[in-house]
Amino acid sequence: MPKSRPKNAFYAQSGGVTAVINATASGLIETARKYENKIGKVYAGRNGIIGALTEDLIDTSREASRSIAALRHTPSGAFGSCRYKLKSLEENRREYQRLIEVFEAHDIGYFFYNGGGDSADTCLKVSQLSETMGYPIQAIHVPKTVDNDLPITDNCPGFGSVAKYIAVSTREASFDVASMAKTSTKVFIIEVMGRHAGWIASAGGLASSEDIAIPILILFPEVRFDRNKFMKKADQLVRQHGYVSVVVSEGVKGPDGKFLSDQGLKDAFGHAQLGGAAPVVAGMVKQDLGLKYHWAVADYLQRAARHIASKTDVDQAYAVGREAVRMALKGDNAVMPAIKRVSNKPYKWKIEKAPLDKVANVEKMMPKNFITRDGFGITDKCREYLTPLIKGEDYPPYKNGMPLYIRLKNTPVKKKLKTRFTP
Amino acid sequence: MPKSRPKNAFYAQSGGVTAVINATASGLIETARKYENKIGKVYAGRNGIIGALTEDLIDTSREASRSIAALRHTPSGAFGSCRYKLKSLEENRREYQRLIEVFEAHDIGYFFYNGGGDSADTCLKVSQLSETMGYPIQAIHVPKTVDNDLPITDNCPGFGSVAKYIAVSTREASFDVASMAKTSTKVFIIEVMGRHAGWIASAGGLASSEDIAIPILILFPEVRFDRNKFMKKADQLVRQHGYVSVVVSEGVKGPDGKFLSDQGLKDAFGHAQLGGAAPVVAGMVKQDLGLKYHWAVADYLQRAARHIASKTDVDQAYAVGREAVRMALKGDNAVMPAIKRVSNKPYKWKIEKAPLDKVANVEKMMPKNFITRDGFGITDKCREYLTPLIKGEDYPPYKNGMPLYIRLKNTPVKKKLKTRFTP
Repeated sequence: MPKSRPKNAFYAQSGGVTAVINATASGLIETARKYENKIGKVYAGRNGIIGALTEDLIDTSREASRSIAALRHTPSGAFGSCRYKLKSLEENRREYQRLIEVFEAHDIGYFFYNGGGDSADTCLKVSQLSETMGYPIQAIHVPKTVDNDLPITDNCPGFGSVAKYIAVSTREASFDVASMAKTSTKVFIIEVMGRHAGWIASAGGLASSEDIAIPILILFPEVRFDRNKFMKKADQLVRQHGYVSVVVSEGVKGPDGKFLSDQGLKDAFGHAQLGGAAPVVAGMVKQDLGLKYHWAVADYLQRAARHIASKTDVDQAYAVGREAVRMALKGDNAVMPAIKRVSNKPYKWKIEKAPLDKVANVEKMMPKNFITRDGFGITDKCREYLTPLIKGEDYPPYKNGMPLYIRLKNTPVKKKLKTRFTP
Repeated sequence: MPKSRPKNAFYAQSGGVTAVINATASGLIETARKYENKIGKVYAGRNGIIGALTEDLIDTSREASRSIAALRHTPSGAFGSCRYKLKSLEENRREYQRLIEVFEAHDIGYFFYNGGGDSADTCLKVSQLSETMGYPIQAIHVPKTVDNDLPITDNCPGFGSVAKYIAVSTREASFDVASMAKTSTKVFIIEVMGRHAGWIASAGGLASSEDIAIPILILFPEVRFDRNKFMKKADQLVRQHGYVSVVVSEGVKGPDGKFLSDQGLKDAFGHAQLGGAAPVVAGMVKQDLGLKYHWAVADYLQRAARHIASKTDVDQAYAVGREAVRMALKGDNAVMPAIKRVSNKPYKWKIEKAPLDKVANVEKMMPKNFITRDGFGITDKCREYLTPLIKGEDYPPYKNGMPLYIRLKNTPVKKKLKTRFTP
C-alpha cells in the first residue's frame, strides 16, 4: 500500500444501543467523508469489537450518502453491537495482538469506540497499543449510554431521548389513570431502566410541571425501599388527587439489599419465574392499600423510541461523532468528546476534549441534591439539569404510517488474514 | 324555562379511555357550539354516567374555544370516565327514574354516550326512555374503543392509534434486539392489550413491511397457545435471523383454557403474585431454548400515547363527534355514527348512520382469514385492513420538550335537585 494513502478508521458500537447511537455514526462517517485526504475509509466492526477480533469489518464507503444521513433518524446499532469487554493486556495479550494484526492488515490508524463506561476502558487500552505494543493508533472514545453515568461530560448521548420517552409516557399514562380513578385504577406503576443510578427514573418527575401538576412517586435505586413509608405517601396522594403514578427503577432494592424484582417467584409447578419491579410494587399496593392498579414495563421500548427522541439528544449525538473525527485529525489520542453545559437559560452547550484516563472506570452517580428529602421526587436543581436534555422533537420520516428507518447494506470488507480468531 | 330555548345536551365518556376520545369530545362540542339556536349547552357527566346519576354535571360552555380545540390533541378522558353499566329497566328502574329527574332538571334533550359495547347497550336503554317512561330524549352512541370490537363500523376510534403505537414500538424494539443479538438478547417479547380479540396484537405484524422485514411471532387470543409449536418456530427464526420479536396478547390462553398470565405465581412467602403474559412466555423461552430475552408490558402507555397517534384515527374520532351532533339535529334517536370504508387505495371513508339495536351487545371478532394458517402472523388481507388506520402523524404541541395537553376547568353546573343518589 503506498505510504501517501491516508490511514483508514475503525468504528464500532458497543453495549446497549440507544435511539441516537446511529446519529453519532452518521456524524462520524459524514465528517470523515469530508476529509478523505486525511482519513481513508471508515470500517465498522460488525457487532462491535467482535468484528475487529474476527476481522469481520463493514465497508461504510459502500453506503450511499443518503443512507448515512438516514442513520441520524434510525434507532439501534446499524452495524450491530456487543457486550464484550477486553481484559487487561496482562490477562489477555492474545486479543490485543489480534487487534493489531487486523488493524495492520486493513491499514487502520484511527479507532473510534462508541459506548459507555466499559467501552471507555477498552478504548483506553487500545490507545496504549502504540506504547505497549508499538502499533501507532489514535483511539477516541465516543460517548453513548442511556444510563448517563459517564464522568466529565455533562450528559451522555442516548440519555436525553430515554428521559423524554419516560417523561412523556408517564404524563400520558397519568392523564389516563386520572380519568379512570373514580371507579377503577388509582395507582399506575411504570418500571424504567437504570440498575445502578436513578437518572432515568428521575425523568419521570418531568411528567409533572408547573402548568400540569401530577402526583408522582419515584422509587430510586439510590434510596432503599421503605414499604410503609411508600404506602403512606401513596395513600395520601390518592386521597388528595384521586390517583398516583409511580415510577420505579429496575434497580430499586428492599431493606434486605436484594433487588425488589428478585422476589423468588415460583409458578404452580415450583419453577422459578421472572419478575419485574413494577408487578412487585403493584402486588404490595394491592395487599397494603387494596387499591386497583395497572403496571407497565417499558424495557427496550424506552431506549429504542426514536419516534419521540429529544432534539437536543440527536444534535449532541451527531456532534460527538463529528468532533471525534476532528479530534483525530488534530492528532489526539486517548480522548473523548464531552458535552459541556455553557448556560441553562437559554440552554447552550459545546463539545470539549476529555482525557480518557479520567473517564474510564468512573461511574457518575446522581447528585444527592437531585432527590427530594422524602426520597420520592426530584428537586428543582434536578429539573433544571434534565429539562434542556429532553427539549425539542426530531421526528423521523414516515411511510404508510410507519417510521422509515434505514437498514444499511453492511457490505463486508474482504478478509486479508488467513488466521481465524474465536473471541 | 321559556319553551323557545333549545334543549341542552348531555355528553359522557365511558369505559377505558383512549388517545383520541377527547378528539371526539372536541368534535362534538365544537359542532354543538355552531348550532346554539338548536342545542343549548353541552353538559358533560363528571366521570361518565355517574355524573348524570349524581347530578354532577360539567358546564362545557365555560371553557374557552381554544381549550375545546386543544382536546383534539389531548389523550385520556377530560371529564373523567367510569366503568359502570346500567342494569335493565326491569332490574333497576330507580336508576332510569333518576336519569330522567336529572335530565328534566337541566332541560336535557340530547344524550351523547361515548364508549364501547357496554355503553352502546346503556345508550340504547336511554334511547327507549321516551317510550318506556315518557321522557322525550334523543340518544346517540358515539363509538370509542381500543378493542376495535364494535360491529357495523369498519373500525373504532381509538384503535388506530393503539395499533400505530404497537406497530412503531415493535419495529423500534426489533431494531434494538437485532443489534444486540450477537452476544446478548435474542428474543424480545411485548405484551399488548386485547383480552377477547387479537386486533391490537395483529398491529404488531405491521412492524414488518415489504421494505423492512422483521421476524415476528404473534400470539393471538384467538389461537390456543401451543408451547412446542411456538418454541420450534421461535428457534427457527432465531437461527435464520439471529433474533425474533414476539407480540403476545394479554388474552392468550394455554391448552388448559386458562390465561397464560394466570400461572398461579407465588412469592417466597407464598403470597399470590401478579403476572403478565410476557414474563410467562419469557420464562418458557429461557427454559425451553435457553435464549436470552427481554420483555415489555405496554399497558396504559399504548392507549394513552397521543404523541404518536394516527392521523386517520384523530380525524375519525373528531368526525364521529361532529356527526353525532348532526344526527341529533336531524332528529335521530338510537343511532351511532359508524365509519364506512369507501376504498382502500386511496383510503377513503365516510360516516354513516348505524341503528343502535344492531350495535349493542354484539362483539366483532377478528375474521379468521386475518390470521396466517400457522397461527402466528397476519395475512395480506389483515395488513390491507390495518394499514390505512395507522396512517399519518398528528403531533401535539410541545413546551419544554413535553406535550402540552389541556386540563379543562371543568366548572360544575349548579345542582337543582334536592335529592341525592348513590349509584
